[in-house]
Amino acid sequence: MPSVDICFSPELLPLYSLQGKVAVIVDILRATSSIVTALANGVTHVFAVAELAECQALGRQHSCLTAAERDGRQAEGFDLGNSPFGYLDGALDVRGRAVVISTTNGTQALRRSLAADEVVIGAFLNLQAVADFARRQQKDVLVVCAGWKGMFCLEDTVFAGALAEELAADFDVSSADATLAARHLWQQAQADLPAYLLQSSHVRRLNSLEAHKDFEFCLRLNEYPTTLPVWREDRLVLLGNR
Amino acid sequence: MPSVDICFSPELLPLYSLQGKVAVIVDILRATSSIVTALANGVTHVFAVAELAECQALGRQHSCLTAAERDGRQAEGFDLGNSPFGYLDGALDVRGRAVVISTTNGTQALRRSLAADEVVIGAFLNLQAVADFARRQQKDVLVVCAGWKGMFCLEDTVFAGALAEELAADFDVSSADATLAARHLWQQAQADLPAYLLQSSHVRRLNSLEAHKDFEFCLRLNEYPTTLPVWREDRLVLLGNR
Repeated sequence: MPSVDICFSPELLPLYSLQGKVAVIVDILRATSSIVTALANGVTHVFAVAELAECQALGRQHSCLTAAERDGRQAEGFDLGNSPFGYLDGALDVRGRAVVISTTNGTQALRRSLAADEVVIGAFLNLQAVADFARRQQKDVLVVCAGWKGMFCLEDTVFAGALAEELAADFDVSSADATLAARHLWQQAQADLPAYLLQSSHVRRLNSLEAHKDFEFCLRLNEYPTTLPVWREDRLVLLGNR
Repeated sequence: MPSVDICFSPELLPLYSLQGKVAVIVDILRATSSIVTALANGVTHVFAVAELAECQALGRQHSCLTAAERDGRQAEGFDLGNSPFGYLDGALDVRGRAVVISTTNGTQALRRSLAADEVVIGAFLNLQAVADFARRQQKDVLVVCAGWKGMFCLEDTVFAGALAEELAADFDVSSADATLAARHLWQQAQADLPAYLLQSSHVRRLNSLEAHKDFEFCLRLNEYPTTLPVWREDRLVLLGNR
């Protein structure tokens, strides 16, 4: 029976083997939630880079939209920030466009996980799609939490716990202590996820009105239940839509 | 108000500042539980080293007892393993002796934390002593979980949560997500700590009869409520007993 393990920080990735596994990259607030929203709303593919300069250069090279955030705000000179509403509110027509995105934590987690057999993007918005894919793959799953500047982050952990619970019938979700702990936290959180996560330090950093709208959106369960961003060659595309 | 934060793995220590803080080293199963037991039962001081060869060399140099474990078993050629009962059952007279100890995880956590203002040893056995010391110091506390080969470990985390709850009236225990999560796990665990921790992967690794005796002992709350091992120069001594 394949297993589910959780890496709480990209800094701990050297301790884990990625080979033969499905890596699920998670940065609930807000990188992975935004990537799922982008692909669900007609964006053709997403490049993910670490540095702002690389983001602008790639944007020019591929004539695509640029999205960048630093410390929770849209970076200057970019088309979009890190809000999922950038792909929803109609201010920009994103349909048929590509996006190059750079974020504080999510991009780093993604790029450090590329040794895995499959690298997919997870969020509450597409929990079902991630679980369905894992069940079809029948490989060990490693959830890679982006965290906050390398540190443990409550919302990413609670998502990992939700995914483990979803997979409990078909996967070993009891062998790794990280998975046990995350499942316990999800069990506490699920009755009122927004209230539970309002405690988190990251949420309290995003304390503007706009950010609160993002927060509520990012916690919607299965808003896009069939949208699965997967890594192919050098970019994220919708599964089955290369 | 000083704060309580938790580092889930020695591998994450580079992300934290230790200066000006009290570092509480935790390796419930079994290094820190054994060190507390040793000092509570007449051992004069404890040297902690990473390597087996260094442990033997230091033992000869200081004419002290040697204690070493690898992967849960007493290492060959050493006086003691990593069981607290080595200091209790009378097979060896430890009173007035020094011990040099090398363990898989606990020693590494300790030696990487020496930049802190104070380095103390925490276990369920001396929870009260750790909390009392932290309150007197009035400095930020960083609990350093030894983990299992660098990975997240349930029993160390639950101890950290117990300490945070104990300090909740006088410390900020809500700013760090790691502390929030650990407190939630402790709240779930405290009604029946042994049953809760029987899930942990580490506990399942220690599945012999002798190990189960250790396990039950290591979970006793405040068996030694005034025993605080502190780091002085190159060794651990009882607080107030240099």
